[in-house]
Amino acid sequence: MQTLLTVVMPVFDDMTHLDFTAPHQFLVRMPDTQVRVASMGGASVHAEGLQFCGLERLEGIDTCDVLCVPGGKGTMAAIEEDAFLDQIQRLGRSAKYITSVCTGSLILAAAGLITGRQAACHWASRDLLLAFGVIPNDGRVVKDGNVLTGGGVTAGIDFALTLVAELAGEDLARELQLRMEYAPAPPFEAGRPEIAPPHILRSVRANLAGLSADRKDRVTVVARKRGLYP
Amino acid sequence: MQTLLTVVMPVFDDMTHLDFTAPHQFLVRMPDTQVRVASMGGASVHAEGLQFCGLERLEGIDTCDVLCVPGGKGTMAAIEEDAFLDQIQRLGRSAKYITSVCTGSLILAAAGLITGRQAACHWASRDLLLAFGVIPNDGRVVKDGNVLTGGGVTAGIDFALTLVAELAGEDLARELQLRMEYAPAPPFEAGRPEIAPPHILRSVRANLAGLSADRKDRVTVVARKRGLYP
Repeated sequence: MQTLLTVVMPVFDDMTHLDFTAPHQFLVRMPDTQVRVASMGGASVHAEGLQFCGLERLEGIDTCDVLCVPGGKGTMAAIEEDAFLDQIQRLGRSAKYITSVCTGSLILAAAGLITGRQAACHWASRDLLLAFGVIPNDGRVVKDGNVLTGGGVTAGIDFALTLVAELAGEDLARELQLRMEYAPAPPFEAGRPEIAPPHILRSVRANLAGLSADRKDRVTVVARKRGLYP
Repeated sequence: MQTLLTVVMPVFDDMTHLDFTAPHQFLVRMPDTQVRVASMGGASVHAEGLQFCGLERLEGIDTCDVLCVPGGKGTMAAIEEDAFLDQIQRLGRSAKYITSVCTGSLILAAAGLITGRQAACHWASRDLLLAFGVIPNDGRVVKDGNVLTGGGVTAGIDFALTLVAELAGEDLARELQLRMEYAPAPPFEAGRPEIAPPHILRSVRANLAGLSADRKDRVTVVARKRGLYP
């Protein structure tokens, strides 16, 4: 009997769906691996115009080898839901690898799974990790012991290849990279604040500030409630 | 009253879901744009472990500005379904831009929408375009008039940025690139047959050959039936 590697991907409303679908597309093609996509109560998840159904109950999953959490706009609501964080904490404690993409690291942080560790996060939200006693790292993919985190959204692909290499070897990662034709050729150079033209950075910062003026306060409230505020 | 730009993304069982979700994540964040995700009859779509629900009926959509078709394993079954191809053909004829990611270009080709044009496709399936009188192009993103096509799977991100720039200007594309933190840093160099290590290429070719030994025959049958075989 083959022992399957189990990956659990918790999903929630208003996640940035690409945070989740990009690594899922790679992980689901790993041999001898079961990827379980789960939400609270198994409810359908609405995320930026898409609806994901047929999900497992997060509460019904006993353990996993890899916990992989996406982020997005819905992250704030997710970390304000104690029942959700409790499930993340429970599964994270059973996992060999604790992982995330984008602001998913804020969920790991709020669940108390990565206190004192280095973690990546979306560039615009990275400093929020400090409220949970987590050390922000500006790497695209950051490994600290058994914690593997990716930066914003599309970093999920580089993250997935790194995770596949860790779990099943570099050659499988290279095979999946070739199958997914991952030889990126961005038509513009604007993917990080450090290289984006100043007027682009200003515009995006203004846009994001409007969306989340109260994020820092909300994160602090969660951190205090969960006993994590440093 | 603001006139919305309408993007239609037809989806189908066994698509490679990242072909669809990657461009969707960018396009859905364009201002004044309606992205409509549709399947035959509005049926839920199962794709590599995910289930997409709440879809529109492809038959119920009158016109669109942009038609954007994904690919994947299910492409073969999709092009063998005349009713599906008829809807693609109908919508493509109404569209200002006819676009695809991965083997989605085979669907555009089978619908007779890109005859005589240059098109990108997943590297392992590119030559199948010839059966429909379409000219395979090994570019990652290929523009031929109003036909914009991306290569395999992850090329959908470079494709999406190119499409956004075409539809709404380069600055919006750069803003989305920054929001999605698209500054790729692949941990390995294996994303194209030309740069993959020989043992990786051999292994992937063997793997794909097993999946689709009869693809060339099936494509030829479809091309003859649709009166497209050159």
